[in-house]
Amino acid sequence: MEKLSIFKIGGKMLDHAEELEAFLQGLAAVPGRKILVHGGGIFADDLAQKLGIPITMHEGRRITSAPMRDLVTMVYGGLLNKQVVARLQALGCDAIGLSGADGGVLKAKKRKPEPIDYGFVGDIVEVRRDLLETFLNRGMTPVMAPLSWDPSGEILNSNADGVACKITEAFAGYYETSLYYCFDKPGVLLDVNDPLSLLAQIDKPAYESLKKQKLVKDGMLPKLDSCFRAKTLGAHKVLLASPGNSLRYAAGQEYVGTLIN
Amino acid sequence: MEKLSIFKIGGKMLDHAEELEAFLQGLAAVPGRKILVHGGGIFADDLAQKLGIPITMHEGRRITSAPMRDLVTMVYGGLLNKQVVARLQALGCDAIGLSGADGGVLKAKKRKPEPIDYGFVGDIVEVRRDLLETFLNRGMTPVMAPLSWDPSGEILNSNADGVACKITEAFAGYYETSLYYCFDKPGVLLDVNDPLSLLAQIDKPAYESLKKQKLVKDGMLPKLDSCFRAKTLGAHKVLLASPGNSLRYAAGQEYVGTLIN
Repeated sequence: MEKLSIFKIGGKMLDHAEELEAFLQGLAAVPGRKILVHGGGIFADDLAQKLGIPITMHEGRRITSAPMRDLVTMVYGGLLNKQVVARLQALGCDAIGLSGADGGVLKAKKRKPEPIDYGFVGDIVEVRRDLLETFLNRGMTPVMAPLSWDPSGEILNSNADGVACKITEAFAGYYETSLYYCFDKPGVLLDVNDPLSLLAQIDKPAYESLKKQKLVKDGMLPKLDSCFRAKTLGAHKVLLASPGNSLRYAAGQEYVGTLIN
Repeated sequence: MEKLSIFKIGGKMLDHAEELEAFLQGLAAVPGRKILVHGGGIFADDLAQKLGIPITMHEGRRITSAPMRDLVTMVYGGLLNKQVVARLQALGCDAIGLSGADGGVLKAKKRKPEPIDYGFVGDIVEVRRDLLETFLNRGMTPVMAPLSWDPSGEILNSNADGVACKITEAFAGYYETSLYYCFDKPGVLLDVNDPLSLLAQIDKPAYESLKKQKLVKDGMLPKLDSCFRAKTLGAHKVLLASPGNSLRYAAGQEYVGTLIN
């Protein structure tokens, strides 16, 4: 089976120009078929504050009002997505930026307002794999903003980890997919202050046990849930690692990070 | 030869939700291959004012500072482009939004700073026709934001009339191209206050003569220059008309507007 590498980068990297540039240089050099999914970053919050748009979060997830939806459409779908694409093009990587509305590539359903009304937030129900494959077959690299689309014509905000997971699911069975969750830590740490406590691998029973002992918690929970979901849905490899180590592994070197088993 | 319809809509329409919706409904119903190019709109200026970014114009053209470039990348490439695409998708038109950076589809050269330094403004030097054709061959409708890209990785602001003209040029000789400049007036009026003074057609000598008599002036000059350039470069038909009349002509009805000869 043909190989496909799916990289997810988060907001923190997008806020640091040098780190981002180093990552994009590495990504441009990764051989073969690849897809990049990017998150948001603090720029959206900065802009919201300047414009007087309230920022509301619930358990680490953004509640997306109508003005906030328009703002993330601008920032994620416009500024960040196009900046990344323009840099990749300059680096010789034939990138194409997509929001979920483009070609209807990420069809979503607006999340039900109970028990929490997240506003204009979409859970992805369908990935248009054939369109993404058209790009991959031409040697192009889709760059996906975390925005989806519902068939009434609304743009919806979607979690970038979830987007990466759904895209991986759509390709599993057709490609040997590797999912690289690039992370601001080296991987899963038993002690967040000790890099030597890095878990080289984790399986579902170990994860459940660490959860019970509260050794993994907070923002790691939805992230690891996405990792295990991708693995269950047929990903060949799922790695949670730093951007640099993710790229090195994708380029065929030994891995440093946490492999999901 | 296969037919291709290229529509250019301006900023004023983008600021009026109902007008835009009516146009997009009509566009979705136009049969055959089509490309939409959109302009900016006052929303970018409103946002610039809120953010304290100075708006500087020279002879009706925007001077694009670095913060203004980022702003138009957000507004043109993000908000407006994705809103249009999401609506077209909901109307059954398989639209895909593109900035010039996406697939490097509109390669540009930053304009020289003399005699006027327009800042981050690009003159398009190459349209990647093969990529646009891939979409057209799949029954998709490219929706182009007026943003281009230079090979150093910079996003540049480009005039939407010019983008439409360059795309028409790229397809002339391969398709029977019709370019519809949708306009907030019925066409070229000899007396701007009298709709009955509409010129049903105009050729180059007539245009030169009207210019000398100052019967066409101001913003009409770059617009008509673009129209004549497109015609000279091989467009089959170039029509300057209202959005509704442009759509009716594209759908095979008699034309009302100004045909460029």
